[in-house]
Amino acid sequence: MKTLIKNCSIISMVSPEEIFRTGQIEIEGDTVTYAGTVRNTLQTFDRIIDGKGMVAIPGLINCHTHASMSLFRGYGDDLPLMKWLNERIWPVEEKLTGEDVYWGAALSIAEMLRSGTTAFADMYFFMDDVARAVEEAGIKADLSFGLVSSGDDWEGSIENCRRFYNSWNGKADGRITVSLGPHAPYTCVPEFLAMVKGLADELGAKVHMHIAETLDEINRIKDKYDKTPVEYVEDTGLFEGEVIAAHCVHLTGKDMEIMNNSRVTAVHNPHSNMKLASGIAPVDKMREKGINVALGTDSSCSNNNLDMIAEMKAAALLQKVGTMDAVALPAYEALNMATVNGARALGREGQTGRIKAGMKADIVLVDMDRFHLYPQHDLVSNVVYAAGGGDVAYTIVNGKVLVEKGELVSLDREKIFYEVDRSLKRLLGR
Amino acid sequence: MKTLIKNCSIISMVSPEEIFRTGQIEIEGDTVTYAGTVRNTLQTFDRIIDGKGMVAIPGLINCHTHASMSLFRGYGDDLPLMKWLNERIWPVEEKLTGEDVYWGAALSIAEMLRSGTTAFADMYFFMDDVARAVEEAGIKADLSFGLVSSGDDWEGSIENCRRFYNSWNGKADGRITVSLGPHAPYTCVPEFLAMVKGLADELGAKVHMHIAETLDEINRIKDKYDKTPVEYVEDTGLFEGEVIAAHCVHLTGKDMEIMNNSRVTAVHNPHSNMKLASGIAPVDKMREKGINVALGTDSSCSNNNLDMIAEMKAAALLQKVGTMDAVALPAYEALNMATVNGARALGREGQTGRIKAGMKADIVLVDMDRFHLYPQHDLVSNVVYAAGGGDVAYTIVNGKVLVEKGELVSLDREKIFYEVDRSLKRLLGR
Repeated sequence: MKTLIKNCSIISMVSPEEIFRTGQIEIEGDTVTYAGTVRNTLQTFDRIIDGKGMVAIPGLINCHTHASMSLFRGYGDDLPLMKWLNERIWPVEEKLTGEDVYWGAALSIAEMLRSGTTAFADMYFFMDDVARAVEEAGIKADLSFGLVSSGDDWEGSIENCRRFYNSWNGKADGRITVSLGPHAPYTCVPEFLAMVKGLADELGAKVHMHIAETLDEINRIKDKYDKTPVEYVEDTGLFEGEVIAAHCVHLTGKDMEIMNNSRVTAVHNPHSNMKLASGIAPVDKMREKGINVALGTDSSCSNNNLDMIAEMKAAALLQKVGTMDAVALPAYEALNMATVNGARALGREGQTGRIKAGMKADIVLVDMDRFHLYPQHDLVSNVVYAAGGGDVAYTIVNGKVLVEKGELVSLDREKIFYEVDRSLKRLLGR
Repeated sequence: MKTLIKNCSIISMVSPEEIFRTGQIEIEGDTVTYAGTVRNTLQTFDRIIDGKGMVAIPGLINCHTHASMSLFRGYGDDLPLMKWLNERIWPVEEKLTGEDVYWGAALSIAEMLRSGTTAFADMYFFMDDVARAVEEAGIKADLSFGLVSSGDDWEGSIENCRRFYNSWNGKADGRITVSLGPHAPYTCVPEFLAMVKGLADELGAKVHMHIAETLDEINRIKDKYDKTPVEYVEDTGLFEGEVIAAHCVHLTGKDMEIMNNSRVTAVHNPHSNMKLASGIAPVDKMREKGINVALGTDSSCSNNNLDMIAEMKAAALLQKVGTMDAVALPAYEALNMATVNGARALGREGQTGRIKAGMKADIVLVDMDRFHLYPQHDLVSNVVYAAGGGDVAYTIVNGKVLVEKGELVSLDREKIFYEVDRSLKRLLGR
C-alpha cells in the first residue's frame, strides 16, 4: 500500500527551520519514505490524499490519561476533590466491569483519534479490556494497571502485571507496549514499590506513576518519610529504569537534579493542574535542566476533553503567566513536547514523533482553511495557539487512515454511544 | 417570520436550575416568544430547526477585542512585548487603510459568528469601516475609536468621536452602539480624559478602556501620579458613567471598592493575560465584591483566536489555579460572565444574554453529538469545559440564522480570504 499526501504544508519537527509551505509526504506500508518539497516521482500510489490547505504535523502523543473515565466526564465538576472522590467517583468505580472499561476506552480512543492523537499512555483497571479497544481501533498505547498497596494481595497484583505484560507487550503489530503503574508515592508504601521495582527489572518494563501532583502529597510524604515525593521514589530504585512521571507540579531544585540524572520523563498536564487547583508545574525550569518534558490531558474528568492541541496552548500560556515571562515555552516547544518528547517517553524515539523518511507514518493533517486559522503568518503558531482538535481532518497511524475528512473510519460512533449509555444506566441506576 | 427550534436542550441562564433536557424555543421576528419544555402549539412556523442532540445557550458576548487585528494573527508570537510592538505591529498599523480594517473586521466577525458570538465590544481605528462590516454581517457590536493623548489634535479626535457616535449609535436596527475609547491610563493624560468625560456626558455614551492590565502600567501610573490606574481613572470622573474596563488584572482592595461603587464592568481576558504574561485577574474577589465581570478574548494577536467557549474554560481554570481552589469560578459562573454579564456591560441587559420570552432571539446551538461531548452528565460542564467554538452548529442573532449546520450564511469566505491576502500583500510587501 503506497499513499501520497500532496500539496500539504509540513511541520516535520526535525528542526524548527524544517517547515515546508508546500510539500508532499510519501508513505509505503507503515513507514514514511519521503517528506519534503513537492517532487515528481514515477511511483504509482494506491491512495492520494489532497492536502491542499492543510498542514501535516506528527501524530500527537498523550502521555498521561485514564481513558475509560470518559464515562464520568462532567460527573461532579466544581466540587472539592475529596467530596468528588467519596461521593461520585469511588462509588461508581467500585461497580465497574471490564465491559464498562472497554466502552469508556473506546469512547476516549475515538475522541483522541478524531482530535489528532495517535498514541497515549494509560493507567486504570481492567487493562486487558483497554488493550482490546486499542488493538481494534488502530491507535498506539502504553498501558499499565494502576497499583496501590492498600490491598492485601500484593503478590496477586504483581503476578497480574506480569501476566498482562506477557499477554500484551509488543502486540497489535507493536502498537501496544505495557508499563507498570504504581499509582503514586502516597498510595504505594516502600515495600510494595520494591516489589514493583523487582518486576520492572525482571521484565525490562517502564514505570508510569503520578509524582508530586499536589501540595497535599508533598506534605504527606514529608510527614511520613521526611522526603520529597521524588526523593522517595528515587530511594526505591525505580528511577534506575524508564519512568513516565505524571504531573511533577511541586519540585525542588534537588528533585530536578535527581530527575535529570535519571531516565524520567515529566508529563505536564496543564488543564488538569488548573482545574484541580494543583498548581503550575515548573516546565521551563525542567526544560532548562535538560529533563524530557512531555504532555498529557489527564482524564476527561479533570480536563474535560482529550484535545492535545488545546493542551499545547494551555501548556504554553500557563507557563508564560506562571513565570510572568511572555517568551516562556514558545509554540514550537509546546509542539515538541506533544510529539518528539512524547515519543521518547513511550520508548518510541526514532520511530514516531517526527515526519521523516524511515519513521512510522503517524501523521495528522490539520485543516487550516478556517476563519480562526487565517491568515497564516506562522504555521506553528496557528496550530498551537489558534487551532483545536476539531480542526483535524486526517489522522494516520502506521500508514493507516483512521480519520478521513474529520470522520472516524475505524470505530462505530452510534455503537459506542449506545454501549456507554448502557454502562451508565447500570452503574448509576438511571 | 416565525421560527421553531424543536427538541433541543436549553441552558436559559435565567437561573442555574432552569435547564431543559428536551425543550423548544419559539421565535417571532427578532424576539423569543417561548422557551421551555416541549409543547403542542397551533401556530404555523416559517422555519423549523431540528435541535435534536443540540443544546441552546444564549449568544456569547465578547466584551473586549480589536477585531481587525486578525490580519496579524501569529505575526510575531513569542516575542517580548516591546520588540513585537516596535518591530512588527506598529510599522504595519501605520500603513493600515480603512479597507484593510474592514476586511480584518469581516474575518473576525465571521470567526465570531461561526464560534457562537453574537455581540462584541471593539476598539480600534477606522471604526466606520468596522461599523460597515457589522451592519452587513448581522452581528451586534459596541464600537469605539481608540484614543490616545500623544497626538496634537485633541479637538479633532473628540470631534471625530462625536461624528462617529452620531453616525452609528443605534444604527443597523439597533445592533450597533457606540462608546468612547480612551485607550488606557498610561496613554491618556488627565486633561485629555477630562475632554473625553465631557463628550461622554454630552452624548450619554459609555466608555471602553484598558485598565490595570500590566505591572508596568501600575508602576508608571504610580510613579507619575502616585495613584493606582483605577484611582487615576476615578479622579477624572469617568466612573460616573458606564465603563467597560478591559483586563483589571492588578487591583487593590480599594480599587475594587471604587469599581463596585461605580457602573464599571471588568472584562476578564484570560488567554491574553496568560499569553502576554500580564498576570491573573482577581475574578473571584471582584465577583465577591459584587462587581459585574464579563469576558473577552482580546485580539487574535494575543490569544490567538476569538473562541468564547474556549475563553470560558480558560477563565474558570485560570481562576482555580490562581486561587489554588478547585471550587473557584464554577462552569455556570463562567457562562454567566459570557452571557448575562456581557449583556449588562454592553447596555443590553434585559434584551439579550438569556433565552427567555420577550428577549431578543440571540441564540447559539451547540452540537453535542460528538465524542468529546459524550456522555452528558452535566450540560453546563460539557459546554464550558469540554466544547469549543467548532462545535457550534447554529448562531442566531435577532432571530436571523447567520450560521447554519456550522456554515456561515451571511458572509462569503473566499472573498474575505482573498481580500485579507490582498491587504497583507500591500502591508507587508510580500
